[in-house]
Amino acid sequence: MQTIPFLRKSGSAPFTDRGIKKAGQLLRQWAGEEVKGVAIAGAPLSKTSISHSGAHLSPQTIRMMMQSFSTYSIEEETDMWDYIITDFGDIEMHVTDLFESQTRIFSALRDIQDQHKDAVVITLGGDHSVSAGAIKAFQETRGRVGIIQFDAHFDLRNTEDGGPSNGTPFRQLIENGVIHGNQLIQIGIRDFSNGRLYHDYAKDQGVTVHTMGDIKRDGLLSLLQKSVDQLKQTTDNIYLSLDMDVLDQAYAPGCPAIGPGGLDSHSLIEGIQWLAQDPSVKGMDIVEIDPTLDFRNMTSRLAAYIIMQFTLFYNKREGGTTK
Amino acid sequence: MQTIPFLRKSGSAPFTDRGIKKAGQLLRQWAGEEVKGVAIAGAPLSKTSISHSGAHLSPQTIRMMMQSFSTYSIEEETDMWDYIITDFGDIEMHVTDLFESQTRIFSALRDIQDQHKDAVVITLGGDHSVSAGAIKAFQETRGRVGIIQFDAHFDLRNTEDGGPSNGTPFRQLIENGVIHGNQLIQIGIRDFSNGRLYHDYAKDQGVTVHTMGDIKRDGLLSLLQKSVDQLKQTTDNIYLSLDMDVLDQAYAPGCPAIGPGGLDSHSLIEGIQWLAQDPSVKGMDIVEIDPTLDFRNMTSRLAAYIIMQFTLFYNKREGGTTK
Amino acid sequence: MQTIPFLRKSGSAPFTDRGIKKAGQLLRQWAGEEVKGVAIAGAPLSKTSISHSGAHLSPQTIRMMMQSFSTYSIEEETDMWDYIITDFGDIEMHVTDLFESQTRIFSALRDIQDQHKDAVVITLGGDHSVSAGAIKAFQETRGRVGIIQFDAHFDLRNTEDGGPSNGTPFRQLIENGVIHGNQLIQIGIRDFSNGRLYHDYAKDQGVTVHTMGDIKRDGLLSLLQKSVDQLKQTTDNIYLSLDMDVLDQAYAPGCPAIGPGGLDSHSLIEGIQWLAQDPSVKGMDIVEIDPTLDFRNMTSRLAAYIIMQFTLFYNKREGGTTK
Amino acid sequence: MQTIPFLRKSGSAPFTDRGIKKAGQLLRQWAGEEVKGVAIAGAPLSKTSISHSGAHLSPQTIRMMMQSFSTYSIEEETDMWDYIITDFGDIEMHVTDLFESQTRIFSALRDIQDQHKDAVVITLGGDHSVSAGAIKAFQETRGRVGIIQFDAHFDLRNTEDGGPSNGTPFRQLIENGVIHGNQLIQIGIRDFSNGRLYHDYAKDQGVTVHTMGDIKRDGLLSLLQKSVDQLKQTTDNIYLSLDMDVLDQAYAPGCPAIGPGGLDSHSLIEGIQWLAQDPSVKGMDIVEIDPTLDFRNMTSRLAAYIIMQFTLFYNKREGGTTK
Amino acid sequence: MQTIPFLRKSGSAPFTDRGIKKAGQLLRQWAGEEVKGVAIAGAPLSKTSISHSGAHLSPQTIRMMMQSFSTYSIEEETDMWDYIITDFGDIEMHVTDLFESQTRIFSALRDIQDQHKDAVVITLGGDHSVSAGAIKAFQETRGRVGIIQFDAHFDLRNTEDGGPSNGTPFRQLIENGVIHGNQLIQIGIRDFSNGRLYHDYAKDQGVTVHTMGDIKRDGLLSLLQKSVDQLKQTTDNIYLSLDMDVLDQAYAPGCPAIGPGGLDSHSLIEGIQWLAQDPSVKGMDIVEIDPTLDFRNMTSRLAAYIIMQFTLFYNKREGGTTK
Amino acid sequence: MQTIPFLRKSGSAPFTDRGIKKAGQLLRQWAGEEVKGVAIAGAPLSKTSISHSGAHLSPQTIRMMMQSFSTYSIEEETDMWDYIITDFGDIEMHVTDLFESQTRIFSALRDIQDQHKDAVVITLGGDHSVSAGAIKAFQETRGRVGIIQFDAHFDLRNTEDGGPSNGTPFRQLIENGVIHGNQLIQIGIRDFSNGRLYHDYAKDQGVTVHTMGDIKRDGLLSLLQKSVDQLKQTTDNIYLSLDMDVLDQAYAPGCPAIGPGGLDSHSLIEGIQWLAQDPSVKGMDIVEIDPTLDFRNMTSRLAAYIIMQFTLFYNKREGGTTK
Repeated sequence: MQTIPFLRKSGSAPFTDRGIKKAGQLLRQWAGEEVKGVAIAGAPLSKTSISHSGAHLSPQTIRMMMQSFSTYSIEEETDMWDYIITDFGDIEMHVTDLFESQTRIFSALRDIQDQHKDAVVITLGGDHSVSAGAIKAFQETRGRVGIIQFDAHFDLRNTEDGGPSNGTPFRQLIENGVIHGNQLIQIGIRDFSNGRLYHDYAKDQGVTVHTMGDIKRDGLLSLLQKSVDQLKQTTDNIYLSLDMDVLDQAYAPGCPAIGPGGLDSHSLIEGIQWLAQDPSVKGMDIVEIDPTLDFRNMTSRLAAYIIMQFTLFYNKREGGTTK
Repeated sequence: MQTIPFLRKSGSAPFTDRGIKKAGQLLRQWAGEEVKGVAIAGAPLSKTSISHSGAHLSPQTIRMMMQSFSTYSIEEETDMWDYIITDFGDIEMHVTDLFESQTRIFSALRDIQDQHKDAVVITLGGDHSVSAGAIKAFQETRGRVGIIQFDAHFDLRNTEDGGPSNGTPFRQLIENGVIHGNQLIQIGIRDFSNGRLYHDYAKDQGVTVHTMGDIKRDGLLSLLQKSVDQLKQTTDNIYLSLDMDVLDQAYAPGCPAIGPGGLDSHSLIEGIQWLAQDPSVKGMDIVEIDPTLDFRNMTSRLAAYIIMQFTLFYNKREGGTTK
Repeated sequence: MQTIPFLRKSGSAPFTDRGIKKAGQLLRQWAGEEVKGVAIAGAPLSKTSISHSGAHLSPQTIRMMMQSFSTYSIEEETDMWDYIITDFGDIEMHVTDLFESQTRIFSALRDIQDQHKDAVVITLGGDHSVSAGAIKAFQETRGRVGIIQFDAHFDLRNTEDGGPSNGTPFRQLIENGVIHGNQLIQIGIRDFSNGRLYHDYAKDQGVTVHTMGDIKRDGLLSLLQKSVDQLKQTTDNIYLSLDMDVLDQAYAPGCPAIGPGGLDSHSLIEGIQWLAQDPSVKGMDIVEIDPTLDFRNMTSRLAAYIIMQFTLFYNKREGGTTK
Repeated sequence: MQTIPFLRKSGSAPFTDRGIKKAGQLLRQWAGEEVKGVAIAGAPLSKTSISHSGAHLSPQTIRMMMQSFSTYSIEEETDMWDYIITDFGDIEMHVTDLFESQTRIFSALRDIQDQHKDAVVITLGGDHSVSAGAIKAFQETRGRVGIIQFDAHFDLRNTEDGGPSNGTPFRQLIENGVIHGNQLIQIGIRDFSNGRLYHDYAKDQGVTVHTMGDIKRDGLLSLLQKSVDQLKQTTDNIYLSLDMDVLDQAYAPGCPAIGPGGLDSHSLIEGIQWLAQDPSVKGMDIVEIDPTLDFRNMTSRLAAYIIMQFTLFYNKREGGTTK
Repeated sequence: MQTIPFLRKSGSAPFTDRGIKKAGQLLRQWAGEEVKGVAIAGAPLSKTSISHSGAHLSPQTIRMMMQSFSTYSIEEETDMWDYIITDFGDIEMHVTDLFESQTRIFSALRDIQDQHKDAVVITLGGDHSVSAGAIKAFQETRGRVGIIQFDAHFDLRNTEDGGPSNGTPFRQLIENGVIHGNQLIQIGIRDFSNGRLYHDYAKDQGVTVHTMGDIKRDGLLSLLQKSVDQLKQTTDNIYLSLDMDVLDQAYAPGCPAIGPGGLDSHSLIEGIQWLAQDPSVKGMDIVEIDPTLDFRNMTSRLAAYIIMQFTLFYNKREGGTTK
Repeated sequence: MQTIPFLRKSGSAPFTDRGIKKAGQLLRQWAGEEVKGVAIAGAPLSKTSISHSGAHLSPQTIRMMMQSFSTYSIEEETDMWDYIITDFGDIEMHVTDLFESQTRIFSALRDIQDQHKDAVVITLGGDHSVSAGAIKAFQETRGRVGIIQFDAHFDLRNTEDGGPSNGTPFRQLIENGVIHGNQLIQIGIRDFSNGRLYHDYAKDQGVTVHTMGDIKRDGLLSLLQKSVDQLKQTTDNIYLSLDMDVLDQAYAPGCPAIGPGGLDSHSLIEGIQWLAQDPSVKGMDIVEIDPTLDFRNMTSRLAAYIIMQFTLFYNKREGGTTK
């Protein structure tokens, strides 16, 4: 076979430095093998959003942004190069049947986690509607779920007005009997971003709500410690549902529902680092990034960075999956 | 009651010139009255698009752009100020049930045209999927329809792969027995924008197809004359379905599926002016403008201008509806 | 009268959730009635700006951004739904006579506050030049004014070089004898954003100046406490003049004169919350937001949020105006 | 004096090619000397615009765009390198007194043309309001003016509603007795861009109006020939007033009032080339380019190109001014 | 091996329609096999540009834009689905040694064409500097070259001032003795875009130059016919060098050196279609598209469309390469 | 000589206020005179960047942004109006020979600092590759250098893979024997932004590395104090190399390599203020700002502000250079 010097495949990196590995290269396309440790799966659904959203584009954008990071953590003096993050690819969405799309998200994530007992899947939305199926699949395969939801919003809207949308995932889980309200802790809920009716609903159902004011008073790490302790009493495993709009608009300019008065990115990163070290944390989703609205993919960059920090500390705790 | 000098209602025009009336002011919000002549109705559905689309935002954008035109045609020396264009408002879409949304488009447009026999409704999409319901409603209320479709694409895709989407409206109409293929004439079909399978389907069904090459050879007006004559032989009334992507990307930068090799805007305007004068033309839609992708709302501006030209020549022919 | 299912008026909300009320819906267009409590009035003047400015577009943009917030404060567990914020609309500006425009701002705001003794008017600029008329109108109707000005700049420029511009409002007030310098406290003044000559002028006139360095040393709340105490000694009521460029460019990217070294948004929100509770605070303006320069209306979003927080705490103190 | 190799003054061209001269280098900053031939002067006034406009930024942008052209016309095989275009700089505008600004435009242009009898001044707006002063100054110094106005709009609005704005310059000239209507020929007037009242006014005053329809029927060059002949009968010299919005939005995306149905750029260039050869043409303005709205300064690029073509053919006719 | 329903590989098409094949799927990544017919190779070099350019990004963008076209030509009633276009990938550029990069372009293209005698390679720039190496490689492997260069510029600058840049490729070819001036025909050369010195050089060297004025007088097809006839007399094969800035800025907004007065896209497409049918045409490059400056990748879309039209007519003439 | 009222030179400030001096006016174009105190020199090289970069545009953008600041520090109550900052202009770069460009940077900066012993030159990149030449020139003319590098990255990559790029400047300095590793202190190094191999190299060479974690633990000022003390023990003078990407993406959105987890701008400003007061600090560079990617030139604004703060405190320490 002929070879021609200097030809490289289209789409490959234009420059390679022997001393730098790209975080994106940790992603190994799943090919049917048994998976352990951190994995990602795209749930590119955002037609379910109440407002116009391009969040279905974020799985691919987050993967691309992983190419802008390296594999080496200087703070932990750890090179993740020998580890892999399995990429299960994206779940194919139906063009016009959104309920079918939601069913596919549930069933694909259930199959994945059923077949891969030691995988910790990070589901990349899409909008927050994907969490309903993702969490149901998590519980069916991982045992009784305790949820820590980072969010400016309850996402506890009624499903009569618009069906199962990005405003309703946790309402669906409760109303469908998948979870009881005490399995859910919400962190970062913000002024003028929610309805009183749904706060009443949260209280009635036993959902724990920590507002931005609580975070400012008590500190995020302290609230997380309390939340993990509380959830461990009644649940088997913890699932993190990260709606990026928990962040202030200055730090996450690409969320559909941006606003002032939110969390800063440093605190969120610290929180995720801390949570990743807890043995009970076994699943996660990252939702509500619309790359068509973002500035220089800042919000997807942050998501990619959070995936790396989560994996770093998860691997410290569990040993990780090496090549 | 008190009044305070110089206070004006929020949202009203910041400046009024006694000698200039804005085209947008011709729009009279429908309040239950009997309607004659040109009217508009928004069908803000674009979740049915195969690719990400903000076309549901175009009814409101086109209305806004009508504020950038005046009511006076110097070419015809006609001031349309005394006429009205009824604005039926927008059909409310369901957040997650897209089939319900499509049903609503059909039923609302049927009700409108059923109750207002002398109204000529211009449906503002939305994506091209709205034409399926719009044309069915037209035929049920206006008699056997002949369709002149301006488009770069057949929009005759199968409905199995993705359901009733913006690629399938004319396929749906044929397969559901609403129309026979010979009721449909397509104008502006372009290279590398369609599948051979669907060209075969068009031929099999008796659809008439005029390509961009045909337009360049024969001239648009000549093809339109031929098309109107042909349709009149077997149908009662003519419906224009205007997919703005029939235009070249230089003239319609805000269509989701832009490309080179299309029509120029001057020719399209002339074509619409000519068609508006024919007594058989009784309905129209304007679809596939995504204001989030456009440059300075150029494509919506053109749509608003086309509404004005259509109304001008329609009123010349029919007398129009005065205040 | 006929009705047609699913038709909604153009411009109305595309989706309504029974459990969420939009903050924008608190706005009630003034129709001549007696007004109490918080009200807004637009002063869309920015041709008076030294540099090119689209700040006249911000009243309408801020109103629009109020639609992106709900009526419920979770921190205070208060739903503002039963309250109203009166919208006096915008003061009509002259196209070419800017002095006439400034006179209209003064006279309209004087008439409003004269006729509505219990109204607390938030004037939405426009550029900072509008504050000259707004404050004069406030004092004529509300008694001797004490001003807390949030600003990176003195806005004490001479009026000979360019007339009454967005650089001169407080100079005008002092030179025209409307206020004495000791009625004015400036907070957030920044390095390399002002002239020494005008600092000298501030000192000569007895204006109190707190720089960004002072805020970093003493804390904003402590300086505000001191400022309110100081102003109460010699004035009847306090007026807040909020130039959004007091914020760092990372938090207010849409101000004409952005720069580093400014306040963060959280501190500003806290400051406004605290001030709104003080019975002496009876008027406010929010100026210098140019929506044509902003990113995703971040700065107008923040302004809308500040209006909501101000109203929340004002209503707590005064009872507010209910429907 | 020391010199250091490779240091070049900040702001100078980063690269110089011995075989390419930049058109921008033809501009010679006026320093009090006697001027002959083509000259430019900036009238950076756009606060007089009815809608928000950054057209005051266009003189500087057009100068910058001249740097993107070379001095050599291959069609005429003429290198303009030996010629100069005098740059009189910009007329300083008042920050808040717009009438003062308009007076300054008139008096500066009168002084320039009074002192430089053989100069052909191209005034760079600014908005179209600058033409009122510019044309008055032209007539006072060059004799009875005949005007060929390229425009989508009459610009004959009344001055009561908004004062002397960008909608009124030709009305002002007629009402103030500076010109009689028969001195004015308008070319390119467009549908739905004007009021009937002002068409009536044009007719009453004897203004000649050629619409876009006329251009399409008769051809631009033929209309220009007719116009020049007609004006020569009653006037001494011809002044071209070029509102760039005479062009279709596809060719001049940076005009404040863009729209479809306008002229293409090739035709306009041909028209200007033809006019520049006529000995009666002695003055010109180029107005209504807003660089803040443009795409890649396309519209200013075209303006710069038109200046070069005008100068090329002017110099062919008159010999030009060499260095 | 396990499979999971609905999972698709990341990066694959989110929706597949059985009746539409994407043009991008014709691209087959080269894997060492013998190649016949049309092929592409990326030469992503633009650091050699005189002005800042992101043209190195265009090979990947053009490939992506091929995904927005289908494989079916309705004008020719030909589905190209059974054909392949070989994608040789990109030539790897050195980060800092631009001369090394240029050498690699030459040697890789020479190797490709040497090993694949029946391949017609379309080189995707990069800036126009890549044509120097590309044409040298073409001649070494395909015999004496005749060049038809579509361009607004000569690209005959001297190489002393800035080295071998995007302004010098044809100068290099002549000065290095690779070609004689009579092997080169330039089409579309434009006013104020070139230096007289280089026109003199072109004449001295026997280069044939057709300006935009010539095209407007004689028609593009007629000039192309003449050019092919002329080149055939002294050369073996014809190479097309397509600098996209031959187009008017309205049709190719993404070229680094945009300007008015250029070709329209319809004429260019027709010209390429005509040339592709001539048996002497055996090579091509497409250069000077900067995706970072473009609007919605319009210019890369046009390039992709031209590749498809070229391949369509090439395959008609030669039979093409089927799967 | 004639003068004409209100004419001002093109390019001059459109408005002048007698009480405000612009920081940009402190810049005095060097004309061969002896220079003392703070000076700037542009090194507009970014073709050496591994990724596409427009950083060569930042010297001119930073100069422009100095026009948006005034000369007066209210915190220090100091007007810098009487001082000058010498502007040596830009070093001319070669179009295609990047090694020649790098040599010119070294030699011009050496000549400048050799001829001007009391000048403190701030080199404005360009990318970080310019620091290699800049630091070598500093040491040759100012004695043994101690470097404080603010950076997210080591910039210690090998030079074999891509030559001397923006990833290699400090590696070059060490490998070429210009400095020993203990002369270099890196501050702000971040997770997933570097390779382990280069951390090993840093350790092997005795480079001191302070990560973002270190800054969060110890405080920036404390680390700077320690760093200055450490460097003073073995070096003569301190050079600050400021890669703006040490900042978090929220504060420096215009760096090529943005990311989360970085420094805030307030801390950086404080750090520079502190360092400017130390007598050992004698040189500086500011690199890696790409104005084509920035939002409203925020990052260049910050750079200009830092130049002003540095000069303010330098002048306090040294007396500065007055006019």
